[in-house]
Amino acid sequence: MEVFNRFIAPKGFKFGAAIVGIKTNGKDLGLMFSDQPCKSAVFFTTNKVQAAPVQVSKEHQKAMMPQAIVVNSGNANAATGKKGLKDATKMAQTTAKSLGIDEKSVLVASTGLIGEKLPMKKVEDSIKKVAKELSFAKGADVAQAIMTTDKATKQVSVQFDLDGKLITLSGIAKGSGMIAPKMMINEATMLAFIFTDLRISQKTLYKILPEINEKTFNSITVDGDTSTNDMVVICANSIAGNKKIGPQDKNLKTVAKAFETVFSSLAKQIVKDGEGASKLLEIKVKGANNDEEANMAAYAIANSNLVKTAFFGERANWGRILAAAGYSGAEFDPQKVSLKFNGLELVKGGVAVKVDKRKLKPIMQKYNIKVELDLKQGKGKASYKTTDLTSEYIKINAEHRT
Amino acid sequence: MEVFNRFIAPKGFKFGAAIVGIKTNGKDLGLMFSDQPCKSAVFFTTNKVQAAPVQVSKEHQKAMMPQAIVVNSGNANAATGKKGLKDATKMAQTTAKSLGIDEKSVLVASTGLIGEKLPMKKVEDSIKKVAKELSFAKGADVAQAIMTTDKATKQVSVQFDLDGKLITLSGIAKGSGMIAPKMMINEATMLAFIFTDLRISQKTLYKILPEINEKTFNSITVDGDTSTNDMVVICANSIAGNKKIGPQDKNLKTVAKAFETVFSSLAKQIVKDGEGASKLLEIKVKGANNDEEANMAAYAIANSNLVKTAFFGERANWGRILAAAGYSGAEFDPQKVSLKFNGLELVKGGVAVKVDKRKLKPIMQKYNIKVELDLKQGKGKASYKTTDLTSEYIKINAEHRT
Repeated sequence: MEVFNRFIAPKGFKFGAAIVGIKTNGKDLGLMFSDQPCKSAVFFTTNKVQAAPVQVSKEHQKAMMPQAIVVNSGNANAATGKKGLKDATKMAQTTAKSLGIDEKSVLVASTGLIGEKLPMKKVEDSIKKVAKELSFAKGADVAQAIMTTDKATKQVSVQFDLDGKLITLSGIAKGSGMIAPKMMINEATMLAFIFTDLRISQKTLYKILPEINEKTFNSITVDGDTSTNDMVVICANSIAGNKKIGPQDKNLKTVAKAFETVFSSLAKQIVKDGEGASKLLEIKVKGANNDEEANMAAYAIANSNLVKTAFFGERANWGRILAAAGYSGAEFDPQKVSLKFNGLELVKGGVAVKVDKRKLKPIMQKYNIKVELDLKQGKGKASYKTTDLTSEYIKINAEHRT
Repeated sequence: MEVFNRFIAPKGFKFGAAIVGIKTNGKDLGLMFSDQPCKSAVFFTTNKVQAAPVQVSKEHQKAMMPQAIVVNSGNANAATGKKGLKDATKMAQTTAKSLGIDEKSVLVASTGLIGEKLPMKKVEDSIKKVAKELSFAKGADVAQAIMTTDKATKQVSVQFDLDGKLITLSGIAKGSGMIAPKMMINEATMLAFIFTDLRISQKTLYKILPEINEKTFNSITVDGDTSTNDMVVICANSIAGNKKIGPQDKNLKTVAKAFETVFSSLAKQIVKDGEGASKLLEIKVKGANNDEEANMAAYAIANSNLVKTAFFGERANWGRILAAAGYSGAEFDPQKVSLKFNGLELVKGGVAVKVDKRKLKPIMQKYNIKVELDLKQGKGKASYKTTDLTSEYIKINAEHRT
């Protein structure tokens, strides 16, 4: 399996992007089109406040195999009432008409400011224009068009061989702030679009993707704020011509590995571009009573402002980590826990280990820090990727309307 | 009822403080003593990681009416194992011996860095010295001695007449960061010491205080981080000589009002001194299905970094408030909600109201901002006091080991 840190269009997919002027600068509208209707899985936000495009896309995905996605940035089309629903539907309609497909085979996504109306006339004109200029080479343009506070585009591709056929699985994503995805199949949060020419059954997608989503997108957090808008769309158009992958296929492991590589890479790219982030922290909790409690502890640590500012300050203030685990709701005996930073033991049996500062200091100065907390209760484990909390985060979010 | 913004010692209480050298500067040890054993209520942290002084005080308060409290700042004596428990017990023993009382009538409290051992020799010497110099006039010294990242002491007193007797009810507190108290009677978080010469039954204290605690200390948050250490102690020594207040007393309302005034003032002083805070935000949620869901929504909003940075930037980014309510777990219909800032309606029926910017701007510039979210579901309501999230918060917590 080959992994590329750029977007390579799988066979039969075309892309296009344009500048509508919703954002103050840069591309802000993207179109993604498949020559064939796609087997698909979509993870939507679980936030009770669901943006209009989320509502419309849910309905469309239930009704029909998707063949196109239209997306805008700069405006979330959320908390916009009936007008918002009408606008999201209109985006699908205009896309469908321009491409000669059914409006229900179009998914709609938006990201940006909540509570503002879209400049629909300009949006429609741009969709019509972009639809005429689609190309397999413009995936990276769409990656640009979905950026908001992102500093870099997020792209990845994997290619592998199946039955002598070349399979391409590629994704783009956006996300920098308001990142704490809580996604379920047909209920989720973030913008990621993943395309493949693989021939695979719908049932198989639903079998393998929820767990991969849990381990990747649902295991990152920047600020603990779960968005109203975002979604992860997976489209498989079958054009590669391999023997159809079913739920018991001998190649299922290879396929799952390819999906996990793409999901994981995009999730990591999002955390690395976390608003103001200066460090990438991996919070691993093991020895909990069960995975759920491990998850509660890891999530509390990954979202603790005190923990995150300590890492920004490069201070090994491990008491804040124990305190966060302590209020997370996970059950454990504080007298038993152990804690390591990049393999260096700082706490054993609930108390401080004498640590050589010459060993600790270079660890704290690293960009990647792995925090391992062992609760010594049972076999439950969980892992979160997160960032530190920096003055730059405050600046970005106090100054920008995102 | 007269309210004073300074500590007036109720009859029969004496205080003292000293510089041990645990903190880099200033007083860091305090003693509080009552001529008579006290009726008491203590709220301890619910954090699973409970500091040694919390464990020792729980046991002591169960065993005996408290007559003294010894407290240190600069070191939390948390995650210190058996040695920590021994040290906390030793602090009680030394205090008891110096004052000629039983060690179980002494409560112990600590605040500061987690995971470090106390310099016990110096602590014991200081306790002995302070015990000889107690005075009714040194309450404010103890208020200083419990400060960590606090910029100001927290003090309040109320005085009122009962059966022709003057009753004094006074408190001191500390807290600036790691503030998100989740306190229950005999299970709580923060340092507050409240003294009164009122004659009141134990049963009555337990009847009225939990609800007052819920509405005050448990309804503030600075950073969502619940501490391992803190506690609220209420001591009533009966010396005022009023007719004993029982659970059905005709004066119960007056007494409850006095307690609420003191609790509420100290809680507000803590939020106002929240690390790096530039604004005091009151988050009121009403119209939830029940009080619990209102509380979930108010807490999510009060702890959202995106909401808090928006207020720091003086931007009316209300979408972040709706998003936080949406992921809080509270059930509501986003199409119905309304939202006001200081009485000015920004959202109605889930969509933006056209707002005159000349009215909105001066509200966003205010120090006190009241956010009122109506979920339009039922009668549940809740309120949180919190701060904005500022660059100064990051600076304090990245640079200091607290």
